[in-house]
Amino acid sequence: MATAERAAVVLLSGGLDSATVLALARALGRRVHALSFRYGQRHAIELAYARRQAQRQGVTAHEIVDLAHLGSLVASATALVAGSSLEVPKDREPEQPGIPSTYVPARNTLFLAYGLAWAETLDAADIWIGVNALDYSGYPDCRPAFIDAFAELARVATRRGIEGDPIRIEAPLLHLAKHEIIGLGADHGVDYADTLSCYDPVVAGEHALACGHCDSCTLRRRGFAEAGVPDPTQYVG
Amino acid sequence: MATAERAAVVLLSGGLDSATVLALARALGRRVHALSFRYGQRHAIELAYARRQAQRQGVTAHEIVDLAHLGSLVASATALVAGSSLEVPKDREPEQPGIPSTYVPARNTLFLAYGLAWAETLDAADIWIGVNALDYSGYPDCRPAFIDAFAELARVATRRGIEGDPIRIEAPLLHLAKHEIIGLGADHGVDYADTLSCYDPVVAGEHALACGHCDSCTLRRRGFAEAGVPDPTQYVG
Repeated sequence: MATAERAAVVLLSGGLDSATVLALARALGRRVHALSFRYGQRHAIELAYARRQAQRQGVTAHEIVDLAHLGSLVASATALVAGSSLEVPKDREPEQPGIPSTYVPARNTLFLAYGLAWAETLDAADIWIGVNALDYSGYPDCRPAFIDAFAELARVATRRGIEGDPIRIEAPLLHLAKHEIIGLGADHGVDYADTLSCYDPVVAGEHALACGHCDSCTLRRRGFAEAGVPDPTQYVG
Repeated sequence: MATAERAAVVLLSGGLDSATVLALARALGRRVHALSFRYGQRHAIELAYARRQAQRQGVTAHEIVDLAHLGSLVASATALVAGSSLEVPKDREPEQPGIPSTYVPARNTLFLAYGLAWAETLDAADIWIGVNALDYSGYPDCRPAFIDAFAELARVATRRGIEGDPIRIEAPLLHLAKHEIIGLGADHGVDYADTLSCYDPVVAGEHALACGHCDSCTLRRRGFAEAGVPDPTQYVG
């Protein structure tokens, strides 16, 4: 007799990392409820990639939550939302000290909070998030301390936590290099040609060309090279 | 020369507690950015009260964020959103053990997360929330442990926290009885006639009649009696 699959909420952006995390959750047998967000991001075309990854990987449900209001509230503080006067930095070393202008205030806190509401409703075992603190741009809400703090919050904030069965936060990529993430995903059959990492893409219908020069493109390009996996990304020019 | 006022984000529901918290933040000289949420609540008329309190108390800005999607995601788990098949419990002892059906999964986590995004954008000193763990219905996300956990999260999740100037969480009502809250607000000139606590009100234009029997009405009614302050609430019947 098959054991009952447990539900999970997976935060799915349409990028390389979250597509990998989705594959890991599915490999564990989770019934995945994928959650994506429209928050006024420049690269909203990533949601088309999220939809296709959700379909490819056989999720149980996929919700795209409209947080349009968020973009206008934080536009003055981040380059990553459409209409911001800040520019997406190009051709820099992503790991240089400091937090770049593409940082979006409290974004992962908000995404996980939404995930927590859905996870408790679904009686899901866990929430999966593709944060990575090795090949990244120094965002505060991608670090182990952030994940630990949110896990503690999830424990005290919910009925499930009170009842001694807290919703867990799974961040399986936290300590992996980008090339290790790509290797792991390739082993699990992830089609990276249908993921989009670029912060500043050129949209073409339901797909996009990556700029090749933002932090996210730099990390992705380097990751494929180091993994020895052909880079399927379509770049501008 | 006047000292520069600092900005604050105040979570404003239109109820008795958050109206009091708003008055306390204003008394401290904060430039208040009030934040309210439309999340499919049965008592969405509370937002008209929030708008009026924001005007009366001279806030700098007031945003009503649309989280309509939240209601549909959590409807099966809470009686508090419109369309739920669960009923708002009536005429019970609010402090009885257990968490009632009016609990909304992760609600305060989500509201504070939104507040955190705005507070970091505004360079606000703090986020104010009217939670109370004494005369309450046992919601997990109204307890001191929750506030402490969110404060720690705010410290590690943000640029401000990294830079050593974390956004603080102010919950000045946490350890007060309802009658003490009412006394405090009355001293600060809060007009409680223009607040709405009821979970299941009867709407009349931009105002509403309170049911008088839900937990929130029970706590409010008792609070006015114990404070020795005339209860200005208009009840049904």
